[in-house]
Amino acid sequence: MPNSEVSMGRSDDRDIRRRQIAAALLRVAGAKGLHAATMRAVAAEAGVSLHLVQHYFETKEQLMLFALRHLAERMATRIKEDLGALGAAPAPRQVIETVLTRALPTDEESRVFHLVYTSYAMLAVTDAALRHQPFLAAPDAMERFVAEQVRLAQESGDMPRGVDPALTAAALVAMSAGLGTSVLLGQRSAEDALTVIRQTLGGPAPDAATGA
Amino acid sequence: MPNSEVSMGRSDDRDIRRRQIAAALLRVAGAKGLHAATMRAVAAEAGVSLHLVQHYFETKEQLMLFALRHLAERMATRIKEDLGALGAAPAPRQVIETVLTRALPTDEESRVFHLVYTSYAMLAVTDAALRHQPFLAAPDAMERFVAEQVRLAQESGDMPRGVDPALTAAALVAMSAGLGTSVLLGQRSAEDALTVIRQTLGGPAPDAATGA
Repeated sequence: MPNSEVSMGRSDDRDIRRRQIAAALLRVAGAKGLHAATMRAVAAEAGVSLHLVQHYFETKEQLMLFALRHLAERMATRIKEDLGALGAAPAPRQVIETVLTRALPTDEESRVFHLVYTSYAMLAVTDAALRHQPFLAAPDAMERFVAEQVRLAQESGDMPRGVDPALTAAALVAMSAGLGTSVLLGQRSAEDALTVIRQTLGGPAPDAATGA
Repeated sequence: MPNSEVSMGRSDDRDIRRRQIAAALLRVAGAKGLHAATMRAVAAEAGVSLHLVQHYFETKEQLMLFALRHLAERMATRIKEDLGALGAAPAPRQVIETVLTRALPTDEESRVFHLVYTSYAMLAVTDAALRHQPFLAAPDAMERFVAEQVRLAQESGDMPRGVDPALTAAALVAMSAGLGTSVLLGQRSAEDALTVIRQTLGGPAPDAATGA
């Protein structure tokens, strides 16, 4: 989009700067852990002054939340691309599998996503300033999206009725998060985690899957 | 056991000291996060010198691993007590529900357990010294135990056959871990998490459960 460069004003410049600083935070967190991503460490990684970081983000909490939102937006974009690749009118169960699979740490971006989100959550347990940021909006939205797909799958007879879609979605998203952590730790491979997801979603039985 | 006091020698004294220091680490981690539990902070919390902490634990990694093992032992004891309360020959599905439920953060001890274990896991992702400690022994053992119960439940016709017990166990334990995090963050109550676990294990349908 050439126009965006032509029309770039102060607010675009501010947004670019903020994204650069957030990217620096994610590099520090990916290499040394989120607890090491102080304003000072992020400034050093971005090659700017601490004062400049503080100009764009009043507090560390605001900077972390901005970085989390950036991660969540990127994840949403990648999921949309994956869903687009499924073709027109994919089966809801396939949609769910795609969403849960994308959340697994399979490459550097999804590795950082999982690490930073889970680390933020753990820091938030003992840090009230982090806990009071609205960082659960994206996970909540993901759970609602999966619940709607479960409902659609039930309507089309592709998933068993008689279970509550919201509870099923909560179970699936929690499972995906737990599997993601185990992949991050090398407890199992991403392929093995995917096999767990597929069996849980009720794909073909192991015997029947040999031809797949 | 009065005898243990009578026969207390140097190795008992050493063990008690180590447990006291580990307990101090868990208090620091529970209040300020595991990343804040430096050897110095733990010494201050325990009311002993840094030198004494270093006498009992050569490295921070050894101290953390000792504390994790203590947590895992306590969790195993509590699970055994819960299972004992189920009476003779409980149904395997009830055993699984009991294990998964106990892992939820429902009181201070289980809250610290979940927080410290997940925090350790996240720190280990970017800290090779932590990663190389054998901290996954307890989660792996829990998964194997649940897999065996799934197999028994399948044999007795209480859970559907045609699914792999090890994969089902991996899904259930990952779900329990993910739900635990959401409870820790206040995303849902422990009661709601328990409802998710019960539906996943295939208890009575919501309509039929009103009389329970």
